[in-house]
Amino acid sequence: MGGKNALRHRPIPLSQVDISSGFWGERQAVNREVTIPAIYQKLEETGRVASWAMEGPASPPSSHERIGVRVFWDSDSGKWLESAAYSLATHPDAELEATADALIDAIASAQFDDGYLNTYFPVHFPEGQWANLRDNHEMYNAGHLMEAAVAYHQATGKRKLLDVLARFSDHIAANFGAEEGKRRGYGGHPEIELALVKMYRETGEKRFLDLASFLVDERGQAPHFYDQEAYDRGESPETYWARTYRYCQAHLPLREHTEANGHSVRACYLYAGIADLALESGDEDLLRLSRALWDDLTRHQMYVHGGVGPSHHNEGFTFAYDMPTETAYCETCAAIALAFWAHRMFHLDPDSRYIDVMELAIYNSSLSGLSYSGDQFFYANPLAAYPGVNPQGRWHDTMEDGHYRRVYWYHCPCCPPNISRLIASIGEYAYSQAGDRVYAQMYHNNAASVNVGGTDARLLQETRYPWDGSVRINVVAGEPANFELALRIPDWCYNYKLSVNGVAQTAANERGYVVLSREWTDGDAVELTLAMPVERVMPHPHIRQTAGQIALQRGPLVYCLEEADNGPRLANVCIPENSDLRVSLDSELFGGVSVIRGQALRIEPAEESAALYRHQSRATYAESEFTMKAIPYYLWANRDPGEMRVWIRSS
Amino acid sequence: MGGKNALRHRPIPLSQVDISSGFWGERQAVNREVTIPAIYQKLEETGRVASWAMEGPASPPSSHERIGVRVFWDSDSGKWLESAAYSLATHPDAELEATADALIDAIASAQFDDGYLNTYFPVHFPEGQWANLRDNHEMYNAGHLMEAAVAYHQATGKRKLLDVLARFSDHIAANFGAEEGKRRGYGGHPEIELALVKMYRETGEKRFLDLASFLVDERGQAPHFYDQEAYDRGESPETYWARTYRYCQAHLPLREHTEANGHSVRACYLYAGIADLALESGDEDLLRLSRALWDDLTRHQMYVHGGVGPSHHNEGFTFAYDMPTETAYCETCAAIALAFWAHRMFHLDPDSRYIDVMELAIYNSSLSGLSYSGDQFFYANPLAAYPGVNPQGRWHDTMEDGHYRRVYWYHCPCCPPNISRLIASIGEYAYSQAGDRVYAQMYHNNAASVNVGGTDARLLQETRYPWDGSVRINVVAGEPANFELALRIPDWCYNYKLSVNGVAQTAANERGYVVLSREWTDGDAVELTLAMPVERVMPHPHIRQTAGQIALQRGPLVYCLEEADNGPRLANVCIPENSDLRVSLDSELFGGVSVIRGQALRIEPAEESAALYRHQSRATYAESEFTMKAIPYYLWANRDPGEMRVWIRSS
Repeated sequence: MGGKNALRHRPIPLSQVDISSGFWGERQAVNREVTIPAIYQKLEETGRVASWAMEGPASPPSSHERIGVRVFWDSDSGKWLESAAYSLATHPDAELEATADALIDAIASAQFDDGYLNTYFPVHFPEGQWANLRDNHEMYNAGHLMEAAVAYHQATGKRKLLDVLARFSDHIAANFGAEEGKRRGYGGHPEIELALVKMYRETGEKRFLDLASFLVDERGQAPHFYDQEAYDRGESPETYWARTYRYCQAHLPLREHTEANGHSVRACYLYAGIADLALESGDEDLLRLSRALWDDLTRHQMYVHGGVGPSHHNEGFTFAYDMPTETAYCETCAAIALAFWAHRMFHLDPDSRYIDVMELAIYNSSLSGLSYSGDQFFYANPLAAYPGVNPQGRWHDTMEDGHYRRVYWYHCPCCPPNISRLIASIGEYAYSQAGDRVYAQMYHNNAASVNVGGTDARLLQETRYPWDGSVRINVVAGEPANFELALRIPDWCYNYKLSVNGVAQTAANERGYVVLSREWTDGDAVELTLAMPVERVMPHPHIRQTAGQIALQRGPLVYCLEEADNGPRLANVCIPENSDLRVSLDSELFGGVSVIRGQALRIEPAEESAALYRHQSRATYAESEFTMKAIPYYLWANRDPGEMRVWIRSS
Repeated sequence: MGGKNALRHRPIPLSQVDISSGFWGERQAVNREVTIPAIYQKLEETGRVASWAMEGPASPPSSHERIGVRVFWDSDSGKWLESAAYSLATHPDAELEATADALIDAIASAQFDDGYLNTYFPVHFPEGQWANLRDNHEMYNAGHLMEAAVAYHQATGKRKLLDVLARFSDHIAANFGAEEGKRRGYGGHPEIELALVKMYRETGEKRFLDLASFLVDERGQAPHFYDQEAYDRGESPETYWARTYRYCQAHLPLREHTEANGHSVRACYLYAGIADLALESGDEDLLRLSRALWDDLTRHQMYVHGGVGPSHHNEGFTFAYDMPTETAYCETCAAIALAFWAHRMFHLDPDSRYIDVMELAIYNSSLSGLSYSGDQFFYANPLAAYPGVNPQGRWHDTMEDGHYRRVYWYHCPCCPPNISRLIASIGEYAYSQAGDRVYAQMYHNNAASVNVGGTDARLLQETRYPWDGSVRINVVAGEPANFELALRIPDWCYNYKLSVNGVAQTAANERGYVVLSREWTDGDAVELTLAMPVERVMPHPHIRQTAGQIALQRGPLVYCLEEADNGPRLANVCIPENSDLRVSLDSELFGGVSVIRGQALRIEPAEESAALYRHQSRATYAESEFTMKAIPYYLWANRDPGEMRVWIRSS
């Protein structure tokens, strides 16, 4: 599987998946109407749009020893364009397209004759061009612009940006490579690898794939390129601010990696690129590497809400089973990058276990990065919140009684356009196809057009998922057709019912899918009912931070307690083992949300006392009962500020 | 109380308290034989001793914007001299005295004609002299040298260093003060305040007290001196690296403070100085301020082991009830400074509640700063330890599987000589006196000489404290004398027995003391038996980090579990409410230590599984019973590295 001769698995493109209602229909409407315009406004206000005019410099930066966010401004334009393109693919909008065209014109005008494209170095620091691949994000910017170029070409048929990025790619390939006379460099922040594979898939031109292969294979090789370029700058590699090349996954040649390491966004973008290359090349070593890294991350380093990267110090991974809660960094971008990687892993190694993680990361630690209103963003997505505590490790004593809340923009605004492009492209995660088999992946309301079994068919999916586990798929086909419909049985589901036209079906579970193989005729109706009870989740015994606590999950959604519903001192709340946890619709809450209610205890010293510590021989604990209410994690911090907890004490 | 006309309370000087055996006798022997020589060797190796020759510069530092440890080198010499002086006061040692004399000669030679004394600025950065009181520690160094000067004068009668520091104090008073033409500056790191009061007490010269008063009264006044000196340096106060003057307790005029704030060592040294001034001046406002700050710190911001300052970000306080465990900073110096302050609070406001905290901080979070071997030191004293986790907030991914362990020296070595001077001066904390009343404070084996009730008496104390609550005090008196013996009943003790010459005594508890008032004759024997059961300590309900957990305490000692005794995964260990916790002597352990044993459970998922998270509907927890063993916290990290926990789950 995954080899050149294996059956090729591909997502059904988002342009073929119409989402007009339901959970994602609403989220996409907010993205179109609020998020995309809000981000563009910020790109303008902060000078990012104007920077493509290549004017300046005002004054050169005082120091180039540390990376500054200015060096990745270009990527912000790229990610916004990509999000706009996905939106245009399903929801044409002349004004948005005109804005995007104008930005693309500016980008094209900024390109140098030799193909180089960057708004920072030529204007502000010419001698810095390609002088510090470790820190300076030139390839990272290129990658995001490539993703935008491919998306825009797919959405509009316009290839101007695609041609610009092809020239930029050729410029990179002319300067970097294994051939004599080229430098053996690769970017410190991976991203271009997966983007080059997209360029290859869009154009069919193998030179993009070759460049991606070089960048992957060269990473971490000795003699170390980052050492060499540091010496060339007159610096000692010892002075590297991040201290270790683990930070950028370059401490060892990639094929020798056994653990997810370093900056978690870099890691997951890189691993996604590796999976893409493994799929395109059939390279069995890359497949094995991908599986090993996947297993390490998902068995040792992933939060219950799909977040990754516990530490703000390196914005990334620490060590196995290390899951701090209040200070969990869990960058929005990292959860999104994990979803990207998971999606690719499925197509490399078709198994629903990858989609399980993808769905978990999307519904929880990604989606929490955006406010319900659509215009405010989280960078970090902690598992608990307390007034005065900041998961990004800022100074407590300058926060006072402040609360960690979403903001309109970040100095380093990588997350806002990332969650926007994920939402705009959510249709891509609905179905995959391999030959005459169609996989239904993330269930939600949509209408998909597929060519399968020799015919054009439409699959009309109706569901209240993720609020409800009932899914109905109606087949619309001009003529009868033989094909397989593989329905994903999520890992959280232990009981399901399946019928076609009201007739119960039994089918084996093949790597997480039940496969209906038959001649489908127009009007056939599939009904899948996934049992979706409230589950108490218990952590692995090696996770020290949440020992003795449980999380609540229902379907793909992880829940949390907020002070707004449950009062303060959530650390003292305990859910008894025999508590009956019930789901109900709270129609007042964010347009209708399934909440979990149940009996809980607040366990506290029985007597009021100012003493910080009391001897139990002189005092006792008292239990006061109350009805707790849990809401989906992704919706936290949209009401009055206060405490939040995912992990709750249990008895 | 505390006013000029109140009965004056004073510690009985350490020179009158002979400690030759027992808990502190052993610790003092290690301090003399190992710690004091080891620190001097480091002072030599690192150039601190040689720096007094005022030679140089090798090359000037590249930047003076941030403080570097070089600017407080002088204080390290001061603290070592102070420790040596305390040791000499009770254990004469010609070689040690000669070494100290030579260092004092070097210090005296380094003094400028105008009284200025500092090894850094004149040699390396002359224009920096008195240019940045906020950061540069010149007054802090002066304070530590003053404490050394007073101690050395008391121990040896030699006044060379005392005269040097008197001249330095006069230099400071000539430049800083409320008078016309003087600058209204005060040091960013308080310490000199309490040292000036010591100078006053030793010399009787009021000018030292006046300078201390100015420094306290000026702190935080508007217009702000640190703003002004920043402008004078051509800097904006906005660029202050610590961001807020709370860091150095200068955000408000001191008398307006209501909470313990900022860097915890600075805070507690300052508060100790304020208490000293309140005592000397009878200033009721300063007394009220002292009590308010004390109540805030001990009711809201103190760890169960007497440590203070949870955050490495500011090396200090955060907010009420914020008690992280693994990342608890709890600097050794802060616990020692708290003990200093507590001791002063008693003499200002005689109540054993202050001595309770003093004893807690000394026996636990101070003493843990030193290895059992006497040559390795902790800077931070966390409440839990786990491989790969560093309480000082260093990068996880550069620690690998490293353990947080004591080291032989720190780049910023403030803690090593601090714990050394505390141990050397422990005799000072044994007794206090006010008129014809002698207070027995921290019980341990000693022989104290007191002049009380018109006679010279000796109090011979015999006890295995803190391992045992039985204390015997034999009175040796040439002639019968009327005086009061006030015996402290610690806050952890709920039952005690008291007898004199075998006759049971009943006496009221007066602010934490039972007072025996009688005519004492030679051979009178007091027997006090303090019940010292194992206590389960429960945290205040607002402390979120340890909710549902208990700590174990017996007498003044807080206990912990170590992996060496209990295996790994201590987070899963639970002490049942009905577990019988028994004390026994482990004679093999560190020369004989009372350990706590009892039945405990390890609660973990019943099935082995690689899954990070499991639904409880599909898996169960299993409880495995074992006999847990807790050791005194101060002894942790003296054996095989591994996990440690003070707070244990309880059911």
